[in-house]
Amino acid sequence: MSDHRSLPEPAPFTADDFAARLRRAAQSAQEAGLDGVLVTPGPDLLYLTGYAPVAITERITMLVVPVDAEPAMIVPRLERPDAEAAPGASILRITDWTDGSDPYLESAALLAATGRYAMSDSAWAMHLLGLQDRLPSSSYVSMTTALPMLRAIKDDDEIERLASAGAAADQAYEEIVTLRFAGRSETEVGADLADLLRQFGHSQVDFTVVGSGSNGANPHHEIGPRIIQEGDMVVLDFGGLKDGYGSDTTRTVHVGEPTAEEQEVHDVVRHAQQAGFEAVRPGVECQEIDRAARAVISDAGYGNYFIHRVGHGIGLTTHEPPYMVEGETQALQPGMCFSIEPGIYLPGRFGVRIEDIVTVVPDGGRRLNQTPHELRIVS
Amino acid sequence: MSDHRSLPEPAPFTADDFAARLRRAAQSAQEAGLDGVLVTPGPDLLYLTGYAPVAITERITMLVVPVDAEPAMIVPRLERPDAEAAPGASILRITDWTDGSDPYLESAALLAATGRYAMSDSAWAMHLLGLQDRLPSSSYVSMTTALPMLRAIKDDDEIERLASAGAAADQAYEEIVTLRFAGRSETEVGADLADLLRQFGHSQVDFTVVGSGSNGANPHHEIGPRIIQEGDMVVLDFGGLKDGYGSDTTRTVHVGEPTAEEQEVHDVVRHAQQAGFEAVRPGVECQEIDRAARAVISDAGYGNYFIHRVGHGIGLTTHEPPYMVEGETQALQPGMCFSIEPGIYLPGRFGVRIEDIVTVVPDGGRRLNQTPHELRIVS
Repeated sequence: MSDHRSLPEPAPFTADDFAARLRRAAQSAQEAGLDGVLVTPGPDLLYLTGYAPVAITERITMLVVPVDAEPAMIVPRLERPDAEAAPGASILRITDWTDGSDPYLESAALLAATGRYAMSDSAWAMHLLGLQDRLPSSSYVSMTTALPMLRAIKDDDEIERLASAGAAADQAYEEIVTLRFAGRSETEVGADLADLLRQFGHSQVDFTVVGSGSNGANPHHEIGPRIIQEGDMVVLDFGGLKDGYGSDTTRTVHVGEPTAEEQEVHDVVRHAQQAGFEAVRPGVECQEIDRAARAVISDAGYGNYFIHRVGHGIGLTTHEPPYMVEGETQALQPGMCFSIEPGIYLPGRFGVRIEDIVTVVPDGGRRLNQTPHELRIVS
Repeated sequence: MSDHRSLPEPAPFTADDFAARLRRAAQSAQEAGLDGVLVTPGPDLLYLTGYAPVAITERITMLVVPVDAEPAMIVPRLERPDAEAAPGASILRITDWTDGSDPYLESAALLAATGRYAMSDSAWAMHLLGLQDRLPSSSYVSMTTALPMLRAIKDDDEIERLASAGAAADQAYEEIVTLRFAGRSETEVGADLADLLRQFGHSQVDFTVVGSGSNGANPHHEIGPRIIQEGDMVVLDFGGLKDGYGSDTTRTVHVGEPTAEEQEVHDVVRHAQQAGFEAVRPGVECQEIDRAARAVISDAGYGNYFIHRVGHGIGLTTHEPPYMVEGETQALQPGMCFSIEPGIYLPGRFGVRIEDIVTVVPDGGRRLNQTPHELRIVS
C-alpha cells in the first residue's frame, strides 16, 4: 500500500460560524410558524454549537433556540465544564441541573408554556415525555418533519470537508482493487477497506460492505465469512467520517472476466447512476433524481430488482435529509449534498450498485467521488 | 503482564429465555395499568429479543408487547433477514415496512387506538411523535417512569455474566497496581487499563478514569495529560462490557506512603462502602443504601464532600435502574445488581472513591468484585 501524507486539517469552525447557524435555525423556525428549536446531543447539537458530550445518557442536555430570544442550553452540572469549553458555547446562556432535582421542570422553564417546538429526531422519548408532562399545552414536531433542511445546505467549508472525505474514500478504492479478492473472505477484504479508510484520514469507519456473489443480491448484507470466488461480482460500499464529515461510495467489481449478462446489468446501473446525476440542478424536486435513475433500470426490464430509494443526504452523519425518494417534493438547492446509488439485485445470484456523493451547484451537480464507473476486473 | 487463558463463553440465551422475559414484561405492564410495552433498539430490545440492529437510524424498528396478545415486531424490510435471525425472533410475529410507505401508520396498526404504553427511554422522539400523530388518543410514558424494574432483576445466567465481568475487572486491577505510576501520565495508565480489560475478555471498554492528585477531586474527571507524582492519591474507575454485561469498579491507590489525613479519608470511604454493603438485603429501600454509606461520611465530618448518589444498577448497560439515591423507595429484591461507590472529594487536593458491584441475595448482598479495599501503595 502506498505511503500517505496527511493533508492539513481544515480550519475549525468559529463562534461566528455557530452564531450564523443559530440565527438561521431561529429564522427557519419562525418561517415554519414555530416558537423555537430544541436540540439534544447528536449531529444537530454539533452543527449548532460544536458541542458533543462524552456520552449520550439518561441525563438531559438540551439547547433551546427560541425565535424571539437568545439561545440557551441546559446541561447536567457535572458536565458543565465540558459544555462551556465547546467552540460555540461563548454565545450561549448555559444553565445546569443537579441529581435529585427535576430536570424536566428546569428544562421547561426555558420554554413557552403554549409553545410549539421542533425537536431533534434522535432526542430521547423519555425527555420529550418529560417536557410534555410538565408543559401540557406545549406541542412538538420532529426536526425532519418541521425543518428537514436545517443542516441540508452545506457551506463552502462543509463541502470542502465532504470532498476531502470523498477523495479519501476514492484513494481507498484505488488501493483495494490492486489487492487479491479470490480465495479471501469478505471479512478480510472488509478489514482491508477499513484500514485503508483510516490510512487515508478517516477517524471513524461506519460501514464496509463486501457483498460477493449471491450476498451482493441482498442490499443490506455487510460482510460475512464467504470466500470470494473467481467469477464473482463483488459490491463494495464503504464510508465513515473524516474531519467530522461523511464519506459513502459504492463500486461493484468482478473477479476475472464477467459474463455478457453481468456486464449488461452493470451497464444498466452505470447508465442509471449517470441519468440520476444529470437530473441534478437547483429547483428540481428530490423525487426526480430517483425517477431519472429508476427509469433507466425499469426500461431495461430490471425495475423489480431495484428495491430501495436512490439516495440520501450526507454531512455530519452518513444518512440525513434530503432523501432522494418518490414522494419527496423538496426542491434541490445549491450546497445540498447526497448520494445517488441505484442498484440491481438478482436474488440468489448477484448484485450491482454504483454510488457517488454529489453536491448541487448553480448549473447542475458536482461529483465528490471521482473514480471510474466502468466495471473493474480484479484478481 | 501475565498470560491469560480465556474462559469458555457462557451459553447463549435461548428462545425460552426470551419468551419468559416477554411474558414478564407483559405482566409488569398489566400490573402497571398499561396496554403494553413499546421497545426500540438498544438494551431493552436486546434483553427481550436478543436483537440489536447493525445501526440505530431514522428507520423505525419497534417491538410491541401487548398485555393481551402475542408480541409483534415491525422492522424496515431491508433489515428483516437480520431481525429474523435474532435468537428471540422465532416467538415474534414480524412485519415490515418499505421506503415510501408511512412507517408510523404501519406501526400504529400494532397498537390500540386509545392504548397507554410504556416506551423505551432512548426511543427517538421522532418515532414517538409519529405515533402520537397517527393515534391522537393513545398515550405514552417512559420505561423508567412506568417500568423501571423491567431489566433490574437479573436471572442466574445474567448474574454469572456480571460476575465474570467483575472478575475480569479485578484481574485488570491486580495487574495495573504492579505497574509504574509515578512519572507517567494519566492517559498512559488509562491506556494500560483499557488494554488489560480487553486482555481479560472485555469486548468493549466504556471508561477508564485515572484521577491523580487534585484531578481525583473532580468525580467527572476521566483522564488527562497530568503526570502522576510521588505522593499522589489516584482514583482508578474502569469498566466496560464482557459477554454483553457490564463491569464497573473503583479503587483508590497511593503513590508511596500516604499522610495520616490521606489514610483517614480513605478509611472513612472504606467504612462507608462497607456500611452500604451491609445494608443490602431484600425489602430494604434503595435510598437506605445511600443513607447507610452517607451516614458514615457525614459522621466523620466529610458530608459536604460526597456530592453524588451512592450507586446505580448495572446489566446490559453500565448505568440503569435501580438507582441508590435519596428519594428512591423501590425495595431491593434478590437478583438486583448495582454499584456501591461512596467518595470524598476535597477540591484542589485529592479524591477517594471505592466501588464494588453487588447483587442482592436472600440473606443480604454478594460482592461481584473481590479485590481488597485497603489503600494500596503503588510505585
